[in-house]
Amino acid sequence: MSQHPLFATRASRMKASEIRELLKLLDQPGIISFAGGIPDPALFPAEAFSQAFQQALGPDMQAQALQYSVSEGYAPLRRWLVQHMREFGVECDMDNVLITSGSQQALDYLGKLFLSPGDTALVGWPTYLGALAAFNAYEPRFDRLNGNKGADEFRAAAEDGAVKFAYLSPDFANPTGETLTRPGREALLNLTDELDCALIEDGAYQALRYDGDPIPPILALEQARKGSIENCRTIYCGSFSKTLSPGLRMGWVVAAKPIISQMVLLKQAADLHSATINQMAVHQVAEACFDTHIPKVRDTYRARRDAMLDALQQHMPDGVAWTRPEGGMFVWVTLPSGISGSDLLAQALDTVKVAFVPGQAFFPDGSGANTIRLSFSNSDEATIREGIRRLGQVLRA
Amino acid sequence: MSQHPLFATRASRMKASEIRELLKLLDQPGIISFAGGIPDPALFPAEAFSQAFQQALGPDMQAQALQYSVSEGYAPLRRWLVQHMREFGVECDMDNVLITSGSQQALDYLGKLFLSPGDTALVGWPTYLGALAAFNAYEPRFDRLNGNKGADEFRAAAEDGAVKFAYLSPDFANPTGETLTRPGREALLNLTDELDCALIEDGAYQALRYDGDPIPPILALEQARKGSIENCRTIYCGSFSKTLSPGLRMGWVVAAKPIISQMVLLKQAADLHSATINQMAVHQVAEACFDTHIPKVRDTYRARRDAMLDALQQHMPDGVAWTRPEGGMFVWVTLPSGISGSDLLAQALDTVKVAFVPGQAFFPDGSGANTIRLSFSNSDEATIREGIRRLGQVLRA
Repeated sequence: MSQHPLFATRASRMKASEIRELLKLLDQPGIISFAGGIPDPALFPAEAFSQAFQQALGPDMQAQALQYSVSEGYAPLRRWLVQHMREFGVECDMDNVLITSGSQQALDYLGKLFLSPGDTALVGWPTYLGALAAFNAYEPRFDRLNGNKGADEFRAAAEDGAVKFAYLSPDFANPTGETLTRPGREALLNLTDELDCALIEDGAYQALRYDGDPIPPILALEQARKGSIENCRTIYCGSFSKTLSPGLRMGWVVAAKPIISQMVLLKQAADLHSATINQMAVHQVAEACFDTHIPKVRDTYRARRDAMLDALQQHMPDGVAWTRPEGGMFVWVTLPSGISGSDLLAQALDTVKVAFVPGQAFFPDGSGANTIRLSFSNSDEATIREGIRRLGQVLRA
Repeated sequence: MSQHPLFATRASRMKASEIRELLKLLDQPGIISFAGGIPDPALFPAEAFSQAFQQALGPDMQAQALQYSVSEGYAPLRRWLVQHMREFGVECDMDNVLITSGSQQALDYLGKLFLSPGDTALVGWPTYLGALAAFNAYEPRFDRLNGNKGADEFRAAAEDGAVKFAYLSPDFANPTGETLTRPGREALLNLTDELDCALIEDGAYQALRYDGDPIPPILALEQARKGSIENCRTIYCGSFSKTLSPGLRMGWVVAAKPIISQMVLLKQAADLHSATINQMAVHQVAEACFDTHIPKVRDTYRARRDAMLDALQQHMPDGVAWTRPEGGMFVWVTLPSGISGSDLLAQALDTVKVAFVPGQAFFPDGSGANTIRLSFSNSDEATIREGIRRLGQVLRA
């Protein structure tokens, strides 16, 4: 069978994620990995989940827990999220909330909702690799969000394809760890208003702030301007992956109702609904211990971030620069130009058994060869110091 | 914000499923529902799932159960499925198996893999509504699979768009309950060989045979012709939704490795992976009690099917015809021409509180106005007899 001529045109744009391939290296003994953006499993509230799953499978709830359910998501979890969003200044009701199987699925559905082939998506340069992969399936053009372009230049650059949305993660972004300032958020709202396009706000890391004052989500800032969420173009994507557990695949979207209604239709057609029992379990754990659990997660990761920044200061040779994130899981390192992140990885794995992600994959145009992404979330401080020491050794050599 | 001009062209093809909307009626007291294809929750192996989730959240497995995992799926579950498929004459290995979030997700990914706008998908007239919805997102043309067309006529009818695949559910199909004979399966293989297109075999109901001899899956018949699964064009989609639990959203795909590899990339980009803990739980329950559990499910549904067929015989007026399924969950009723299934539903709900699904939605061309789908899976025999009696009463009136 001649398979390949049968594939849709999009298939040529789908390629294996370097990060997912790298995850396989984690099984090798002795590797110090700063690769995947992986939570420390010691921080999972496993006992709370055990109780929650037992309750969901008890006599009162088991029939519902194991049965089909509505595409919108489990109502008590959506109600909890309405309260949760209120803490950040977003006023919405249950019909503004859709449960997704991780925020990755939200990105897939948003690509599906907005992008016809040749349409333009504005993204950071670099940006989250998984967003590029999700959007790529719908064959858009990418244009660079950051920089000095005004609305007119974006409009001109979009040429035949309309600018459908701008995508970014404003807090401690993957991969750079950087945070968009409040004036930056306001400027972005001005830009998307001028372009009359949607704005996808990826809040995956928002809860993981280690110092500095929280900045309201872009959706909250837009609502402050425009009153009702129904007047807002911002689509907020949240995730329980970095706070409670990634393995349960639980995320959510908050947006104006016409957007949510369309996404419900897409979800109905694509997987009917997210697993009922997982929604129940996450609801129960969130209700029971979200507010007490998150500070523990923050304390652990803060210490690891500090260890990594200290070690970089101590061990990196001149000419290497890095970000100083106020939260999240990543430090972004810029090597002297001419040094390739991929070459460094090959050498680091081979000689000192240290893994990380070369930065090039995060750039839609394949630039950024001299960058790397380091994750500090899944190694203790001593391991971080040792890993960075070894990395410095390779770089000096 | 002017949302709608921003949506992709596919959005105009996405509409709410009548069945999913009907599910909301089930909450009303006193309704006898033959609507959704919903398993009886009393048959869920809830105790076995409770033990399985407890074990997955015990000290040995909790870190893995709650963590990110690979897009291909949980290896022990994939190994179990290799054995499971062998029982039906399909020889494959783990790399031929992908875990999906229900077989609905497999249909979405297969549409995504094969269909560019305007490509042709061959489907039954009627066919599974969820397949039409999943494929619709990729803007294909649909052509009618059944009938007397030869390969040349399909090729001609496809015009600009290539025939990418034929889709069908060969056993006790949703919505008709009909089964494709062995010669019919062989003829379909000949057709897809001639057209050089893929063949998507939806095995969602395969395990639910109540009488008659099992017919091998199309994939097994193709493998018998061609030796290795790597030479096969058939893509088999399986589901645990009708056998163990739909709420966990667990399905699988078995196909040649180039297909599975591409689907792994699509899944990576679309939701990373299916929930780790659900895969573990389903693996454990399948291992512990699949073979002892399924006969109980069959016995229960067989008695309900018999009750429905008897009651139809007793209460339907002349001019009404129906299928006699050997398995599955559905009886397909053809009303005298001129009687509309939708009108009948409105009347039946209003006057005798009986729900079902009008058949028109299952036809890509909107024909079939005089058909309805009755599900017998989620009502006991007495309720089925009473519901069909009432339906007969409305039809006679």
